[in-house]
Amino acid sequence: MITVALAKGALLKESVSRFVSSGLDFSDVLDPDNRQLMVPSRCGKARALLVRNADVPVYVAYGQAQLGIVGYDVLREHQMPVAHLVDLGFGGCRMAVAVKEESGYKRASDLPPHCRVASKFTNCAREFFDALDLPVELVHLTGSVELGPITGIAEGIVDLVATGRTLRDNGLISIEDLFQSTARLVGNPLALRLDRGDLKDVVELMRT
Amino acid sequence: MITVALAKGALLKESVSRFVSSGLDFSDVLDPDNRQLMVPSRCGKARALLVRNADVPVYVAYGQAQLGIVGYDVLREHQMPVAHLVDLGFGGCRMAVAVKEESGYKRASDLPPHCRVASKFTNCAREFFDALDLPVELVHLTGSVELGPITGIAEGIVDLVATGRTLRDNGLISIEDLFQSTARLVGNPLALRLDRGDLKDVVELMRT
Repeated sequence: MITVALAKGALLKESVSRFVSSGLDFSDVLDPDNRQLMVPSRCGKARALLVRNADVPVYVAYGQAQLGIVGYDVLREHQMPVAHLVDLGFGGCRMAVAVKEESGYKRASDLPPHCRVASKFTNCAREFFDALDLPVELVHLTGSVELGPITGIAEGIVDLVATGRTLRDNGLISIEDLFQSTARLVGNPLALRLDRGDLKDVVELMRT
Repeated sequence: MITVALAKGALLKESVSRFVSSGLDFSDVLDPDNRQLMVPSRCGKARALLVRNADVPVYVAYGQAQLGIVGYDVLREHQMPVAHLVDLGFGGCRMAVAVKEESGYKRASDLPPHCRVASKFTNCAREFFDALDLPVELVHLTGSVELGPITGIAEGIVDLVATGRTLRDNGLISIEDLFQSTARLVGNPLALRLDRGDLKDVVELMRT
């Protein structure tokens, strides 16, 4: 029995559609009446775990799911031991530094040393500012990071930007990108090694 | 201008009602059409920041909000430097260890050494199992922790239990409580010290 971990939220619909094309039909998870977190595929050969974004690599790393689909941003932030198998191309967005439009900052290195930067992705932000040799104090927030510069808790933020609308609505502009993110197929390394072909078939179909 | 941090979610309605009784009317945050994260009080003398649970003590600790209402569970987990002012009594729940009903475990110390325990509250769980002298491997999940024992990623979980329905629906039972949690009024220590009476008035009215 193959178990796959799927992230609730923005990536779910396209994730299900990719698995359908690869022979595993988890369409039932898209049923608005579905309340189950563990959903069998229609063929009965597999099941999906419906979990939060950040938990996908956890279930895959521990082997409770052999495969999973999750954004590259989550993989970069949490660095779990999972095999990166396929860049699926959808769910595109970028991790960016953003500041108040009227701040006048044009790039990340314009930020004053020791200023505060708010983010849900403090590991990514730490790595980025370390590479810039710019010491900043990171403030970890769990949501609505765009409030940071407005309330004054932070001079800038590091956050995912898709359309840029949230930034605009809050008078912020992005001034530098850390990296691009798309949805990725990941796998449990041991399960892939012991695989007798079932996982390989799915992975190969996902590649095409 | 007083700024208060309010947690979105289960505590919001009662939090607003307590502030109304204390003279700060943030009823507008309960308007289902409200999309703003920073909402002025009707009297114009204060404003509310609408943030996620875990971010309330962050905004209060950094002084962007002078007061906030948040569950004791969050205060225990994150240990931010905020003053605990009033136990407001509502939002009661308990932090508990839960296992599969058929596991046969009767208390936390029955769990096998080095087993895995999943939780959103890994600091609370760490402290609890350290005090028990029971070495466990903590698996940090960000949501749907009740999936842990079902998928086999963990033998038990540490999670908030209010009515117990989520546990029952997933074949789990709680076997030991870590602590009880209720909503608390917290304050920024420096703001309280510099206060000329405005904050004190609100705090006193909250106490009654």
